[in-house]
Amino acid sequence: MKILAIESSARAASVALATDGRLTAQYYEESALTHSRTLLKMAEDMLAGLEMTVADVDAIAVARGPGSFTGVRIGVAAAKGLAWGAEKPVCGVSTLEAMAWQLVPMEGAVIASAMDARRGQIYNALFECRDGEIVRLTPDRAISLEELVDSGKNLGRAYIFVGDGGNICYNRFREEGLPALLPPASLRLQTAWGVALAAMKREPQPAFDLEPNYLRLSQAERERLEKLKKTN
Amino acid sequence: MKILAIESSARAASVALATDGRLTAQYYEESALTHSRTLLKMAEDMLAGLEMTVADVDAIAVARGPGSFTGVRIGVAAAKGLAWGAEKPVCGVSTLEAMAWQLVPMEGAVIASAMDARRGQIYNALFECRDGEIVRLTPDRAISLEELVDSGKNLGRAYIFVGDGGNICYNRFREEGLPALLPPASLRLQTAWGVALAAMKREPQPAFDLEPNYLRLSQAERERLEKLKKTN
Repeated sequence: MKILAIESSARAASVALATDGRLTAQYYEESALTHSRTLLKMAEDMLAGLEMTVADVDAIAVARGPGSFTGVRIGVAAAKGLAWGAEKPVCGVSTLEAMAWQLVPMEGAVIASAMDARRGQIYNALFECRDGEIVRLTPDRAISLEELVDSGKNLGRAYIFVGDGGNICYNRFREEGLPALLPPASLRLQTAWGVALAAMKREPQPAFDLEPNYLRLSQAERERLEKLKKTN
Repeated sequence: MKILAIESSARAASVALATDGRLTAQYYEESALTHSRTLLKMAEDMLAGLEMTVADVDAIAVARGPGSFTGVRIGVAAAKGLAWGAEKPVCGVSTLEAMAWQLVPMEGAVIASAMDARRGQIYNALFECRDGEIVRLTPDRAISLEELVDSGKNLGRAYIFVGDGGNICYNRFREEGLPALLPPASLRLQTAWGVALAAMKREPQPAFDLEPNYLRLSQAERERLEKLKKTN
């Protein structure tokens, strides 16, 4: 089983090829260029380096959000495009869950995925690792840092933080005297390898059904609704 | 400070670009192709993706062994070639130490780098993480699994294993009732990112002085010496 995985929900973009549960190749890049310019080229270079094409993979996995609206849109569009062209099924996974998979088999702490969602919020979900699998403790949600701190106080367990909002959460937990951990640097940000790991546990679907999961309205939609409210 | 890092001491090959201590890009591949075919192409693709050339980096870092004789030779030759052509300094780092750097800031356990060295031996060195830095506890060495088990009994501390020999060591330690850990999969094998991390703490040298560190004689040299012994 070969999975081509795509991740572009934040500043960095990455693509990976997983073969029967093992990482065959990964290409990760955090450049000043937009993902729309880099992502497909990275996938092509990586497959060419392995003397493969998209026709040789069994499924395409993608982080379908939450995250940067533009990044998620580019990732989902790239996955759909590749899947339609090559007639492959797709597997859309939660960005937050994909990050948690990178920490297997670290048991004990609650895994808190935290992405900066601007406007005083973070995209967050809580997980834990049990017997080499990731178990979800909450749905994906957009909450305030205060709400996350409250959850830490209520649960009374150590949190280990991943995601580009992880450092802020970690520092705040330490200020509050709550037990908090940061994993090694290369596990802190999302990668296509995490997407592949999360996808392995799921049944791929027809590409037609794949939709981004933004968790909340985009700025454009928000402003449109506000305008409509004013004119009504 | 931009470091182009190269790692090809085992089955996988990888290249990375680190900018001021952060990972800008990494390309990792474990294919059936020889590193001599893939390594420089991966570096070129990665730099091109960042709209850079070797002229834009400040130093070239490479894992100079121990490891696969052929792999180490290809990595060191690639680093020297790139460095001479672009007139850049190089930084050769221990493969075993580079792996340990990937685990920063995980404190507590002894970090045991272990690579399968064939002939009943492992390439090993012990490290620990203190205040975000890797501290070396032993030199790089080729020892038997029994000797490593003895060191674990004597030290009386938990070992966390990295390297392609890590699983065997981990299982043996568990059989012996010694405390042992395995990190998440993506930290278990060497990467160019680890090489970059180890190189950041060192002063780059002229490329001329860079030499592989095989730790022991190659099969060809061993057989030649045995032949000479017999004929004398």
